[in-house]
Amino acid sequence: MADSLTLAFLDKLWRMPFSGESLEKAKYGILDYIASAFAGRADAGVMKLIRAADEEGGRPLAPVLFHGCRVNRGQSALINGFMGHALDYDDVHAEVRGHPSTVILPALIALGDRGGDGRRFLEAYIVGVEAMARIALALSNEHYERGFHNTATAGALAAAIAGAHYLDWPAERAALALGLAATQAGGLRVHFGTETKPLHAGLAAAAGIRSLLLAEADVQGSRASLDGRLGYFAVFGQGEERARAELLREDAVPRIVSPGLWHKLYPFCSAAYFGWHAAEQLGRIPLDRIEAIEIAFTGRSDAALIHQRPLNGEEGRFSIEYIAALILSGRGIRAGDFQRVPIDGEIRAYMDRMRRTNVMDEPPGVRYTRITVTLTDGGTVTAVGDRPKGSPGNPVTEAELERKFEEVVTGPNAAAIREQVLRLDEARDVRPFIGLLGEG
Amino acid sequence: MADSLTLAFLDKLWRMPFSGESLEKAKYGILDYIASAFAGRADAGVMKLIRAADEEGGRPLAPVLFHGCRVNRGQSALINGFMGHALDYDDVHAEVRGHPSTVILPALIALGDRGGDGRRFLEAYIVGVEAMARIALALSNEHYERGFHNTATAGALAAAIAGAHYLDWPAERAALALGLAATQAGGLRVHFGTETKPLHAGLAAAAGIRSLLLAEADVQGSRASLDGRLGYFAVFGQGEERARAELLREDAVPRIVSPGLWHKLYPFCSAAYFGWHAAEQLGRIPLDRIEAIEIAFTGRSDAALIHQRPLNGEEGRFSIEYIAALILSGRGIRAGDFQRVPIDGEIRAYMDRMRRTNVMDEPPGVRYTRITVTLTDGGTVTAVGDRPKGSPGNPVTEAELERKFEEVVTGPNAAAIREQVLRLDEARDVRPFIGLLGEG
Repeated sequence: MADSLTLAFLDKLWRMPFSGESLEKAKYGILDYIASAFAGRADAGVMKLIRAADEEGGRPLAPVLFHGCRVNRGQSALINGFMGHALDYDDVHAEVRGHPSTVILPALIALGDRGGDGRRFLEAYIVGVEAMARIALALSNEHYERGFHNTATAGALAAAIAGAHYLDWPAERAALALGLAATQAGGLRVHFGTETKPLHAGLAAAAGIRSLLLAEADVQGSRASLDGRLGYFAVFGQGEERARAELLREDAVPRIVSPGLWHKLYPFCSAAYFGWHAAEQLGRIPLDRIEAIEIAFTGRSDAALIHQRPLNGEEGRFSIEYIAALILSGRGIRAGDFQRVPIDGEIRAYMDRMRRTNVMDEPPGVRYTRITVTLTDGGTVTAVGDRPKGSPGNPVTEAELERKFEEVVTGPNAAAIREQVLRLDEARDVRPFIGLLGEG
Repeated sequence: MADSLTLAFLDKLWRMPFSGESLEKAKYGILDYIASAFAGRADAGVMKLIRAADEEGGRPLAPVLFHGCRVNRGQSALINGFMGHALDYDDVHAEVRGHPSTVILPALIALGDRGGDGRRFLEAYIVGVEAMARIALALSNEHYERGFHNTATAGALAAAIAGAHYLDWPAERAALALGLAATQAGGLRVHFGTETKPLHAGLAAAAGIRSLLLAEADVQGSRASLDGRLGYFAVFGQGEERARAELLREDAVPRIVSPGLWHKLYPFCSAAYFGWHAAEQLGRIPLDRIEAIEIAFTGRSDAALIHQRPLNGEEGRFSIEYIAALILSGRGIRAGDFQRVPIDGEIRAYMDRMRRTNVMDEPPGVRYTRITVTLTDGGTVTAVGDRPKGSPGNPVTEAELERKFEEVVTGPNAAAIREQVLRLDEARDVRPFIGLLGEG
């Protein structure tokens, strides 16, 4: 077993201990995924996917969250994955460089009709986050920067692993599903700023489910798909040796705890959060006092921020210029700022004075965004954002997450859902809980 | 439009002229796909996929070929793609470096219930082959050699393009489906020698169908997914500039005609066909006269031949050693040689004297396999295989394809299927023909 990297990785995951702290983090991760999905439940893309699933047909085994309808497992994973990520309101993870919960949890929810207790559900989620972070670290930043979307390319594998763990498969059988997921891994950042970005979360969750169903049907494939010269990491990453170091690294604390899930209080891309932190320190500066604004990113940490001159609030989710303009203008950020509504002239005037630079000589692991405003009177003001709200150095608290949930999730089931999530480790069967999430 | 490579490519494909010769080649391509699928119709993997589709459920709109049952479109594409490639008996294409027809035709068959005439079906197939060859050339050999399986990674895009052409979509709308396919492209050669290799053909066809259905549901994504620094060719290939040259190259003859589909008379991997040609020239050499056998491949043209010491005939599909041993032993090749039956001692003894080398200094485009036998009496005999049966320089004739069809396809519908394929350009509606293919 030690010979195969694939099996050694699964074996390590299968032996993970689960601390009380990791179980608590998992509960709050679920709470935040539910809030994010609820906020996106009526997104236009969700409605399109529901119609497409209806045309396709399927055995109604798994829920479309908050819609009171059931679809087949793959469709459920696709739609709920999209829904959680529709507003870019869901968690990220710095090591994943992508969105773990909106891939892993929809896959587990799609398997919920198989039964299983709440503790097992939480553990499978913890294993999924652990797997996705390690896979993404093994792929290295180069993978993301080349143009792959980790949420999709690492997510499909993590969804299959989490699902196999939930189904209590031995590592040997999980290796088969993992291989089927690895060969379906794909996803291009060229789609950022369109509905296909959240679709990637759904496609990854659905690919994970498809892999499990094919493995269950006994379709044969490589059980060593991460290994060697033709394996997943040689093809998509930097080869097996780097992968071995990251996948098998000994760590005292699971990655759902440290660096932990990065929860959002506002629905815009986490890559803009460092610049938001810098802008918050500068505060309001009247437009007529501003000559120019330079926004400096360490490395290529602005890669996800594809809009330098967004036309509407939806594009503004991926624009540091939009976020910084909202703060510098004194308006601040409100939940309604990220709809497909044209951006007005004042904000555009702020953005027109901005340009980006990249700081390439910082050591690895150092990340910040620095905003320097050159004033018309010749002076400059500068601020460095390195610990934005939500990031590992400045986490959103459990109380803040509960407040986000309360503000976002409405309807008669809201309190019951919240209570069941926070006591999920005591649930003897997850089916009533998942049934509750499915109600319209 | 000329600004976007994606749209320029589709525009070029959408304006393709269709010669009588290309339509004839398409008919024989369909005939050969049907024969290959019929031969694989009861393969264990096909039965597994049918059971999985049954568990998943779905609207019965499209056939499982030769099984008398209908499934949803994605399931039909998946199963029929697998079926055509199950025995590695289906066509290849030198520029595709993979299997075009078993991806493109299952996608078109899955859309057959939409109606459309036979001529349109043939044209969409020709466009699909053209697209897949150009995409694979644009990806370059490096893509395949890194570990990607072109049948899957180029196939998903070609299936979406062929389907959009069949549905008579304008290029703008096809670009949306193409982007959705590009972001689902994946497939690793690490699975060669397992059921997941033919599964790749099915997954690619199904991804093409999924892309069309998502585009039909109006899910938005990039319509320029092949373009620029984050586009498909930058991520998977050698960048946009090389892609532009290959995708937009002016050629007088469509690629289904030249170099044309490479049809197989025996179900083993085409990469072994050059060595087969060399071995045929050497003929029988008794084992006790052989000291050693060297098999030299130009470049890495043995990459697909993953078994140097296969254990059974199924692995032998991917082994030049097995093919050469069958010829040198004087047994020759029979259809039954490629089942999961252990390889006997005599053939193993031949294989044990073989080793491979790679000739890295030939100019690009030169491909051969050279077998050199060192005899126990000190002499050597050598033969070079450069025009194996089926390859562009030594094509399988239409009469040979009709004979393959007659030998393989049995049952009461065989003659009617053959006749309808060869007159498909006259069919006013493909539905009766596709209905016939679906009968059990």
